[in-house]
Amino acid sequence: MTAINDLKTQIIQAWIELQQQTPLVQCITNTVAANYAANVLLACGASPAMVDNPYEAESFTRVSNALSINIGTPTSEQMQAIRISAATAHQQSIPWVLDPVGYSSILKWRSEMTQSLLNFVPSVIRGNASEIACLAGDETKAKGVDSTQSSADTYHTATALLKFTSCVAISGESDFIISNDLPHIVKVSGGSALQPKVTATGCALGALIAAYCAVAPTAIATIAAHVHFAIAGQLAAQKSQSIGIFNVAFLDELHCLSTTKLEQYMQIDFV
Amino acid sequence: MTAINDLKTQIIQAWIELQQQTPLVQCITNTVAANYAANVLLACGASPAMVDNPYEAESFTRVSNALSINIGTPTSEQMQAIRISAATAHQQSIPWVLDPVGYSSILKWRSEMTQSLLNFVPSVIRGNASEIACLAGDETKAKGVDSTQSSADTYHTATALLKFTSCVAISGESDFIISNDLPHIVKVSGGSALQPKVTATGCALGALIAAYCAVAPTAIATIAAHVHFAIAGQLAAQKSQSIGIFNVAFLDELHCLSTTKLEQYMQIDFV
Amino acid sequence: MTAINDLKTQIIQAWIELQQQTPLVQCITNTVAANYAANVLLACGASPAMVDNPYEAESFTRVSNALSINIGTPTSEQMQAIRISAATAHQQSIPWVLDPVGYSSILKWRSEMTQSLLNFVPSVIRGNASEIACLAGDETKAKGVDSTQSSADTYHTATALLKFTSCVAISGESDFIISNDLPHIVKVSGGSALQPKVTATGCALGALIAAYCAVAPTAIATIAAHVHFAIAGQLAAQKSQSIGIFNVAFLDELHCLSTTKLEQYMQIDFV
Repeated sequence: MTAINDLKTQIIQAWIELQQQTPLVQCITNTVAANYAANVLLACGASPAMVDNPYEAESFTRVSNALSINIGTPTSEQMQAIRISAATAHQQSIPWVLDPVGYSSILKWRSEMTQSLLNFVPSVIRGNASEIACLAGDETKAKGVDSTQSSADTYHTATALLKFTSCVAISGESDFIISNDLPHIVKVSGGSALQPKVTATGCALGALIAAYCAVAPTAIATIAAHVHFAIAGQLAAQKSQSIGIFNVAFLDELHCLSTTKLEQYMQIDFV
Repeated sequence: MTAINDLKTQIIQAWIELQQQTPLVQCITNTVAANYAANVLLACGASPAMVDNPYEAESFTRVSNALSINIGTPTSEQMQAIRISAATAHQQSIPWVLDPVGYSSILKWRSEMTQSLLNFVPSVIRGNASEIACLAGDETKAKGVDSTQSSADTYHTATALLKFTSCVAISGESDFIISNDLPHIVKVSGGSALQPKVTATGCALGALIAAYCAVAPTAIATIAAHVHFAIAGQLAAQKSQSIGIFNVAFLDELHCLSTTKLEQYMQIDFV
Repeated sequence: MTAINDLKTQIIQAWIELQQQTPLVQCITNTVAANYAANVLLACGASPAMVDNPYEAESFTRVSNALSINIGTPTSEQMQAIRISAATAHQQSIPWVLDPVGYSSILKWRSEMTQSLLNFVPSVIRGNASEIACLAGDETKAKGVDSTQSSADTYHTATALLKFTSCVAISGESDFIISNDLPHIVKVSGGSALQPKVTATGCALGALIAAYCAVAPTAIATIAAHVHFAIAGQLAAQKSQSIGIFNVAFLDELHCLSTTKLEQYMQIDFV
C-alpha cells in the first residue's frame, strides 16, 4: 500500500510539473494523428511541434524537451527524420518514445526501421498488445493497425523488451506498464470502451508519454500519461455514450484534469 | 415495389454484415480526410488502416478486405502506392473504390493517374457530379475540388463509365448509383444541406463504400454506404443547424444506426 | 472616428462579398492544419482546395482566386509546389498570404525558403509575434512553433517588413495589422484565451486572410479575417470554457456570423 500511495503522489506531482513547465515536444507522427495529437498535447499542458523533415530534425530535437516517434504513415523523408531525431535524442539524453504502429511481418518497412531504432535506446516503447507482443518476438495476429490480442495476455512477453528500453507500456482495456524502475508491473484501469472507436487515441497517448517524460522520471511519466487518459476517458464516457460527443468531452476532460480528480479517480495497482 | 423492397432488405443485411465482420479497409487518402475517414470507418463498424507507402502497399493490400483510393493530395510516393495497391487488388480480386478527387483538365497529374487506374478495373468509381461527368468525357466546370454541377444532370453521362467499372456513384443533393447489376438507376435521398459544408465527407463516403464492398455485392454495398450517410446526415441535421455541432452529431448518427432506423428512414427509388 | 467607422463599413462589405463570391482558395498547408483549415474556410464562406504538389501547382494557382502558403510541416515536394505557386501568384497578380510557421534560426530549411519567397511579394505576411519579429530581423525566442513574445511588443519591429509586402499581421492576445494602405496600425480585440489551446487556429486564420483577399483590398481583407476570428472566438467562449466544446462552438460561430453581429461585436482601434 505504501508503495502504491507513494506512486500516486509522484503521478500527481508529474501532472503539476507538466502544467508548470509546458515542455516542448517534437512529434513525428502520422497524417491521421497529427491534428489530434497536437490538440491532446495542448489540452494536457504541453507545447507540441510536428517537425518531421530530415533537414530540420537534428537542430529541432536538440532544443526539444522530449521526442515522440510514431511510425503510422511513414514517408521516405519522415523515415530519415525519424532516424536523425532518434539518434540526436539518444546522444543528447533527451527522452524519447517509440510507438511502432502496425509492427508486424506484413508491414516490413516500418518494422525493420523500428528494429533499427532500438539501437538508439527509446526511453519508452508503447503500443497495443499485438504490436508489443510481435516486437517482443511473439508471433501474433494483428488486424491492420488494431490489436486482436488482450493487453493482459501480453505483459509477460513484453518483459523481453526491457533490454532495449527502460519502460514498456501496453494499452488496451487495462493498460500495463513494465519497467526495471518499478517494483512490480503496474496496471492502470479506467478509460472507456469508446476510446478504441476514436482513431489516433493511442498515437496521441504516445505523444503525451513523451510530454510527461520531459518533467518526470520515465516510469512515473509513463504511468502518469496513462492515468491522465484513463480518467479523462472515464469521465467523458459518463457524459456521453456515442463517439462524436465522447470525443469532444474527452478533450475537455484531458484539459480539466486536477489534483482533486487525480486523487479521486486514479486506479493503479501492482500486478 | 417488390424489387425496391428486396433491395432494402439486402441493404439492411449489408449493414448487419458490416457490424459483424468489421472488415479491414486499406485507405490511401488525402491529408484533409485521413483523420476524418478513419473516424467515420470506426463509427460505421469497419477497421481502417491508412497504409499509403509503396514499400508496404502490396503486402498490405493482400491482407486487406477492401481498398479505398482517393487522389486528393497526392505525393509521388502515394502515387506509387496507389498503382501497386490497385494492381494488387485487381489481381487478388479484392474490391476497391476509386475516388478521383478534382478530376479535371486543370489537375493533369492526378487525372492521368486516374485514367491509367481504370486498367485495374475499380469495383466502384465514386465522385461528385463534376468529377464523374469529366471522367465520363463530358467537359464540365468544377470549382477546385467542389462540384458546380447537379448530380441529377450527370447520371446519363455517367453510364459511359460502366465499361471500366461495375458501379458508378454520384454524390450530391441526391445520390445516384448506376450498375449493370441493378435493374434501374437508384436514387438515394436524405442527407442534409450542411454535409457539403463539412470537408472530406465525400472522401469518407468513398472509404465507407469500400468497407461495405468487403461484406456485400458491389452495387448493394455502394447503395448501403450512401444510405448510411444519408440517414445519419438527416438525423444529425434534426439536432443542429450549424456545422460544428452537426459534424459531431453526424459521427454519432453514423455510429448509432440500427435496423430500425434503416427501415424507418431509408429513401431509395428507381429512376 | 470617421476613419474607423469607414473601416468598419468596408469590413462588413468584405464579409458580404465573401458570402456572395465563395472564392476558390488554394492552400498549401501542414498536416496538422489541413482538415481544420478546410473546415474553417467552408464555415466562413470560401471554397478550399489543398493542392500542394509541384506537378499541378502552376495550373491550379492560375485558376485560384487566392493562395495561402503555410510552411508548417514541409516536404520536399511541398517546397517545390510552394515556390511554383508563389511565383505564379506573383506573375498573375493573384493575392497570396505567407504564414512562416516556426521561422527561426533553429528551423533553417523553412526559414531560408521563407526568405526566398519574399521575392514573390506576398500580399500579406501573417504570423505570431515570435515569427514576425524574427523575420523582421529581431532576434527573439520562440518555443517550437508557439510564440513567447507579445504581439503588442512586436508591431514596431514589424514595420520593417513593409518593404517586402503590403500588409503584416501579428496574431496574439490582441492582433495588429500594419499596412501602408492604412492611416495607422490597426488593433483587433476580442477572441478568447482558449484559442491558442486549439491547434492550427493561426494556420486557418492565414487561409481565411487569403479568402478575404480574393474579395476585398488587402488591408481591409486582413483586418476582416481577424475580426471574423475574434468575434467567433468571443462568442464561442461565452458558450464554453473548455476546449473541446469551445472548438465546436468556434466553428459554429465562424459559420453563423452576420452583419448584425459584425456591427455589435467588432472591436477595432487605431494604435
